Amino acid sequence: MPTATMKALRKMRPARGANLESVSVPALGPIEVLVRVRAASICGTDLHIYGWDRWSASRIKPPMTFGHEFCGVVERVGEEVVSVKPGEFVSAEMHLRDGHCRPCRMGQPHLCQNLRIIGIDLDGCFAEFVKIPVNNIWKIDAAIPEHYAAIMDPLGNAVHTVLAGAIAGQTVAVTGCGPIGLMAIAVAKASGCSTLFATEVNPHRRALAQKMGADEALDPTQGDVVKRVREATGGGVDVVLEMSGHPTAIQQGLQMLRNGGRASLLGLASEPVTLDLVADVIFKGATVQGIYGRKMFETWVQMTELLKSGRVNLEPLFAERMPLERFDDAFTLMQGGLPGKILFYPNGAAR
Amino acid sequence: MPTATMKALRKMRPARGANLESVSVPALGPIEVLVRVRAASICGTDLHIYGWDRWSASRIKPPMTFGHEFCGVVERVGEEVVSVKPGEFVSAEMHLRDGHCRPCRMGQPHLCQNLRIIGIDLDGCFAEFVKIPVNNIWKIDAAIPEHYAAIMDPLGNAVHTVLAGAIAGQTVAVTGCGPIGLMAIAVAKASGCSTLFATEVNPHRRALAQKMGADEALDPTQGDVVKRVREATGGGVDVVLEMSGHPTAIQQGLQMLRNGGRASLLGLASEPVTLDLVADVIFKGATVQGIYGRKMFETWVQMTELLKSGRVNLEPLFAERMPLERFDDAFTLMQGGLPGKILFYPNGAAR
Amino acid sequence: MPTATMKALRKMRPARGANLESVSVPALGPIEVLVRVRAASICGTDLHIYGWDRWSASRIKPPMTFGHEFCGVVERVGEEVVSVKPGEFVSAEMHLRDGHCRPCRMGQPHLCQNLRIIGIDLDGCFAEFVKIPVNNIWKIDAAIPEHYAAIMDPLGNAVHTVLAGAIAGQTVAVTGCGPIGLMAIAVAKASGCSTLFATEVNPHRRALAQKMGADEALDPTQGDVVKRVREATGGGVDVVLEMSGHPTAIQQGLQMLRNGGRASLLGLASEPVTLDLVADVIFKGATVQGIYGRKMFETWVQMTELLKSGRVNLEPLFAERMPLERFDDAFTLMQGGLPGKILFYPNGAAR
Amino acid sequence: MPTATMKALRKMRPARGANLESVSVPALGPIEVLVRVRAASICGTDLHIYGWDRWSASRIKPPMTFGHEFCGVVERVGEEVVSVKPGEFVSAEMHLRDGHCRPCRMGQPHLCQNLRIIGIDLDGCFAEFVKIPVNNIWKIDAAIPEHYAAIMDPLGNAVHTVLAGAIAGQTVAVTGCGPIGLMAIAVAKASGCSTLFATEVNPHRRALAQKMGADEALDPTQGDVVKRVREATGGGVDVVLEMSGHPTAIQQGLQMLRNGGRASLLGLASEPVTLDLVADVIFKGATVQGIYGRKMFETWVQMTELLKSGRVNLEPLFAERMPLERFDDAFTLMQGGLPGKILFYPNGAAR
Repeated sequence: MPTATMKALRKMRPARGANLESVSVPALGPIEVLVRVRAASICGTDLHIYGWDRWSASRIKPPMTFGHEFCGVVERVGEEVVSVKPGEFVSAEMHLRDGHCRPCRMGQPHLCQNLRIIGIDLDGCFAEFVKIPVNNIWKIDAAIPEHYAAIMDPLGNAVHTVLAGAIAGQTVAVTGCGPIGLMAIAVAKASGCSTLFATEVNPHRRALAQKMGADEALDPTQGDVVKRVREATGGGVDVVLEMSGHPTAIQQGLQMLRNGGRASLLGLASEPVTLDLVADVIFKGATVQGIYGRKMFETWVQMTELLKSGRVNLEPLFAERMPLERFDDAFTLMQGGLPGKILFYPNGAAR
Repeated sequence: MPTATMKALRKMRPARGANLESVSVPALGPIEVLVRVRAASICGTDLHIYGWDRWSASRIKPPMTFGHEFCGVVERVGEEVVSVKPGEFVSAEMHLRDGHCRPCRMGQPHLCQNLRIIGIDLDGCFAEFVKIPVNNIWKIDAAIPEHYAAIMDPLGNAVHTVLAGAIAGQTVAVTGCGPIGLMAIAVAKASGCSTLFATEVNPHRRALAQKMGADEALDPTQGDVVKRVREATGGGVDVVLEMSGHPTAIQQGLQMLRNGGRASLLGLASEPVTLDLVADVIFKGATVQGIYGRKMFETWVQMTELLKSGRVNLEPLFAERMPLERFDDAFTLMQGGLPGKILFYPNGAAR
Repeated sequence: MPTATMKALRKMRPARGANLESVSVPALGPIEVLVRVRAASICGTDLHIYGWDRWSASRIKPPMTFGHEFCGVVERVGEEVVSVKPGEFVSAEMHLRDGHCRPCRMGQPHLCQNLRIIGIDLDGCFAEFVKIPVNNIWKIDAAIPEHYAAIMDPLGNAVHTVLAGAIAGQTVAVTGCGPIGLMAIAVAKASGCSTLFATEVNPHRRALAQKMGADEALDPTQGDVVKRVREATGGGVDVVLEMSGHPTAIQQGLQMLRNGGRASLLGLASEPVTLDLVADVIFKGATVQGIYGRKMFETWVQMTELLKSGRVNLEPLFAERMPLERFDDAFTLMQGGLPGKILFYPNGAAR
Repeated sequence: MPTATMKALRKMRPARGANLESVSVPALGPIEVLVRVRAASICGTDLHIYGWDRWSASRIKPPMTFGHEFCGVVERVGEEVVSVKPGEFVSAEMHLRDGHCRPCRMGQPHLCQNLRIIGIDLDGCFAEFVKIPVNNIWKIDAAIPEHYAAIMDPLGNAVHTVLAGAIAGQTVAVTGCGPIGLMAIAVAKASGCSTLFATEVNPHRRALAQKMGADEALDPTQGDVVKRVREATGGGVDVVLEMSGHPTAIQQGLQMLRNGGRASLLGLASEPVTLDLVADVIFKGATVQGIYGRKMFETWVQMTELLKSGRVNLEPLFAERMPLERFDDAFTLMQGGLPGKILFYPNGAAR
């Protein structure tokens, strides 16, 4: 039985910052599961919440506990839960579908019209415990190490993007090498892609891109990267994976794409983007896909299998491990452009 | 054996206008076919060439014969042609692939990197005779009437767009009701689509849209058409077929689309378009397809079968039939916003 | 509040026959729904249960109430049910998934490894009331008539089969014209298929096949139907929908298929079938699909939209309407080869 | 300019055996290419032709030169050939499509209804020179070694089979480990498949299967391999690649498949096969694909890219290199069950 209170990193006010608070351990409904958080990872979204940007102001309702990337051990389960047991090592899909809208009915629950997100709309995992509906629990295969289990949420974004179309034997451009872009490089190579070009302005991230398997890591501010990629491929890559959200990168990505290719867009632009639709999409017969979240739960299966196969090496991505108390340091590091992931350990030091 | 000369509607100079000229009947290479043109139809592209806009100036090399929508009877064949015989009633795919570029090798010859188009880059069909490589000839099924055979090129655009994804049991919005948009309405309904919304500023075209089968024909300048469509469908249509090329229509189309839906873009914008990619594509998990030309020759097979089934009624689209000599009248009518198609009969009056 | 008991048609013993019994109205769990049955339709499976064949002996555990095709009005809902309300007119997906096996996780819950079926493994709908988990309830669109709502289960099988691949502009063969085969004909035509050939030994069913839209209804025992179809199509149909389960029909269907075509198999053979895999599948590059149940709930959406479009006329299929008390007459009629559907009205006479 | 005669391994009579003959170097039509054969590889089909089985008797018309797997250098080109030049290092797709049948028109030329095969229906590559239509020439990327270039035909079969559906993150069973099965193992692993089970009766081939990357190589005559695979995967593999053509292997493969999985059949059974369609295909909702040849030329592009990526190691497959004169030794070795490939060098010793 857990103690009645726990510590949690909470957004208390509509302003920059966060507070480590003592709050009640969540009470469970009949089909809910309480997880003792082992490791939680910081997403760019958490940095937005901490910094309180325009998006946060419109979406986040303080006070609330944030954080949505984690792994942990099941502590307790609701009275009707039969498929999950205390002691099991789990992560979770943090997007909650309504189950009744048309996308849910059409087999696209990750695109639910009434999606709610744990750590955004409900209390999240930057805490000793987090409460998850049983259907969203994902049991971690024994072959997957703990620190990998903590980042299955963003890895799922990468896998969803890479496997949204054919990838084996395809030439690829990844535009933007933040953590998800870097993961996408590793996943694409493990999935048999051919020559992979990465574009990224930050030199540390370009170096990481090559460690993850990129054949060429290009600086889009130096020289004509579109021309370089088009020439090297004889007319453009088969697949573009857009991971930056930067308007220039999106435009360059579409220009790098061959006629008949696929561009999968995951990066979030902070404002509308102007596209030459005729030249870059229509005359090309291109397929442009918006990618959001992870398929429930096809992506989780694929991700598990890819990790089990031992072909996806994510070690270079792990930058720092910290207790939850050092949250200010963590967000400061991220704001400074730290290229890798930071893990919190709310229940004690990392092993 | 044809006479040594023929009349042809030609662009003689880089300026507005065209001339009816007497030119040599084309000589045939070993794998080419000479077709006596029965009926030729005018495309919006022909109006651009006649009027000499920026695109024409960059692409068209006078003197040349234009026109690329037609049907006719085979007059003669090259010495190595075995699969086509004089007397057969044919139309043709006017896009010529190189056969060697990556899209051609990947089964997407309609997206050839070195595409040439008869009637744009080579002499076209506004003439008594037109020369076609044998592999581009399409034999017309006996069940298809002559005037339908003359417009298989644009009908193919419509069929390609509609059948680029699932359509049976899908709610649809068609944005833009020019000839191809109108054809798309008829094809989508014949293919089992559910409620179909059309948007179009021209009231004559809205009236035609309803004749072709649209359940609602909306004026996008009156009221909030996006709201109307989203409410009527409980969150947006499954499929958007963009046929206008107008930036507002493209934006409205994407806003009308449900999460997880498909938007197929055929209409050509005259300049870059600003899109809210995050709201309208990425968070939606939308699939946006550029549609160009017709699949060689899957679209032609589908189109033939749909016409043979008798479920696609295109009669309301046919506006005028004229001798080639009346070309100035024809282009003037089109410029005035004539909603239907005009057919030329270069070898004599329409039956 | 319902009365404490209700009448139900039950299998009481492992032997031929059934009994109309008085049983308790089901008690509801927190996420269950009680439906007052308006009309229930008899499936071939029900006839097997009534007659007690080998399959029934291995699967059915008497005593139990059978029946799995129905519509009705919600009477009461469990305490945690929010999305369904008393008074709503509904049908239901009777296949219950476990939600945790690999097919469920891969977005294929209709292929759940631990599937249970209401009316087979749990008490069914040949009763005044039936109990359904809320997630399996399907609300009936107001545009759909009551008797159509009663047969959405088998109509869903037909829609699932027809829409398991491209259908618009495709030539089709339907082998076997029982109720689902007949529905498939109507659905395929409404979805824009081209020439449709039906094969069926029963002349009444062949006549119905033509009423439903078949272009040719062939007797497979007379002449060479494979040759007929291959010649009429110039090499075979694009799509075969196998609805009979008869070995000869399965073999003929595959022989009728063109190279590169699709064969979707729904009919259940009573024993193993010998196939010429090399000639009929491998050299053909054919795709052979096993079809089971209905996609949850994509098929239900498609079916609803197709019915709403008004293009699917199922009236010729409705043969008889009876009170539940006449169950012996009903099964006798079915055993005699009645080509259409019989509806029970457990709560009073048909309107 | 080549000499007027060349040596060629020819089938002279409808009986077992073959002869090394001196024949005229082929004369070229306007769109044909003459290739000086560097290395040619022996296919199981060649062994059938040599041994003169029932299939050979029905298809092969002596006298003819056989052999259809090769690489070489362009010697001369026909007068209308512009895309290929003397001196280029090439292989070729040996299947000739008619270009006019429905599969050809539907983008499936590898399934042409009137397919002719060089080395089966026309003189093949077991000779100093072979004549190929220009459209079937495939230029070898400089990164691909000569001996790999000689086996692109069977490697293409393997790539076509593996990439006929999703493969990354999928569990796989390969039934039958002849050369194409072994190649399929390497290709599937390079494409990110998860656990791969191989079944094969020959212990040498099982050993090779593990060298190529199989996680488990099982002897299907020892113990219950179906049970083993189903248990290890929690209900069956996602993908079955059937490479044996043996009825038992086909049945076991389908039994190993999970609900909703894909079975791709390439192996050719010598007689009809009895399948439990209900249990193994229909209730499973399985997709069973016949795989034939290689997609023109999508498979060739994919294969080239996979080889260029350096992730497909085929070295263990190369067993023997011989001059053409030792053909009797070669066929004797193959008949004895040699697990790897034999290469002929008709124009001189292997480097």
